Amino acid sequence: MDTKAFRALSYGVYVITSQVEGRPVGCVANSVMQITSSPATVAVSMNRDNFTHSALASTGVFAVNVLGEQSNPSLIGRFGFSSSRDTDKFTGVSYEEKQGVPVLHDSCAFLLCRVIDRMETSTHTVFLSEVIDAGVFPPAIAGDPMTYAYYHKVIKGTSPKNAPTYLPEEGEKKPEAGKTSSVRWVCSVCGYVYEGDPLPDGFVCPLCSAPAEKFTRQVG
Amino acid sequence: MDTKAFRALSYGVYVITSQVEGRPVGCVANSVMQITSSPATVAVSMNRDNFTHSALASTGVFAVNVLGEQSNPSLIGRFGFSSSRDTDKFTGVSYEEKQGVPVLHDSCAFLLCRVIDRMETSTHTVFLSEVIDAGVFPPAIAGDPMTYAYYHKVIKGTSPKNAPTYLPEEGEKKPEAGKTSSVRWVCSVCGYVYEGDPLPDGFVCPLCSAPAEKFTRQVG
Repeated sequence: MDTKAFRALSYGVYVITSQVEGRPVGCVANSVMQITSSPATVAVSMNRDNFTHSALASTGVFAVNVLGEQSNPSLIGRFGFSSSRDTDKFTGVSYEEKQGVPVLHDSCAFLLCRVIDRMETSTHTVFLSEVIDAGVFPPAIAGDPMTYAYYHKVIKGTSPKNAPTYLPEEGEKKPEAGKTSSVRWVCSVCGYVYEGDPLPDGFVCPLCSAPAEKFTRQVG
Repeated sequence: MDTKAFRALSYGVYVITSQVEGRPVGCVANSVMQITSSPATVAVSMNRDNFTHSALASTGVFAVNVLGEQSNPSLIGRFGFSSSRDTDKFTGVSYEEKQGVPVLHDSCAFLLCRVIDRMETSTHTVFLSEVIDAGVFPPAIAGDPMTYAYYHKVIKGTSPKNAPTYLPEEGEKKPEAGKTSSVRWVCSVCGYVYEGDPLPDGFVCPLCSAPAEKFTRQVG
């Protein structure tokens, strides 16, 4: 089986937000798809280890926030590479609440959803959810919806280990045939790759805000 | 609720193939996503009215064929806008069989899947499926994976009514402010839009191969 075939599947980049005991929580997800049009339902897949999973499983109301190509990429680092269990991910993030659920402003659109059914798998729950409200933000805010391919190619991000799309070999970059070896710095928190050497003074990871000392130098 | 928010979700364009009583069948789908990485599983959503649904529900073995930007767009018309119930969609299509399931050659990659669980919704079944084989084709064949956005923007296709992503207002194109009215011809079979007037002599729909008389003229 050639697992590279999985990389040919297309996804968006979403922040799933909810609340637990009045506290806003959220995480990044790619696995969101519409299932029926009338009533409008979507399926969202989430790893049971994610703290946000407990919010969906308990309150059952959540929002799918659609990130755009112009959304601040630090949202991905903030929501994708730390846990709401021990972090308030919303400090300094612009949002409003709809039915108690945070809706992010720096995005293309949102779907407010209520869980109506679920399917359990070995590691993830697929939540079937009715869309109870939805809205779009002006394209000037976040641009076109960000695809997972754009995130990899342009933003040069990776997948956290809880993601179904995680492939261990993603980090093993080898120099292309005919190219001389190059130097890069890789963020040990989120996998962001800085192409070049040295890392600029005071560099901060644009994805997850990790400081320069969290980067490791790679050659080849 | 602003249903335009649903258009901000990102998808690929896939042909789901299977077989019924030894006969190859298939249809277009957008709603495919990976759920777990080990074992590798994907969820595929399909309208119960689709003939291919009966193949997935009975044999349970099928392939997800990932179309690329350079795949022949007539594959979308052929597999998306006619039914395997009364059409042999595979005439003239290059494919090979894996475990009896057709795998299309004019694509980026394939996932051979076996249904392991299912969740019913009002109109669609979500098939949870284990990936039992997977492969990629050289990029020179079909290019980058086709996104649903590319299909709409570049190929100018629409959604069949069985698709969860179908929005009735898609066909209601209005002239933009400040633009003078324009003339277009719309395929009554698949919704393909030819911008211009008149329709060239002997025109055949590039998506579904419908002849010129299936097109209707629209002004404005």
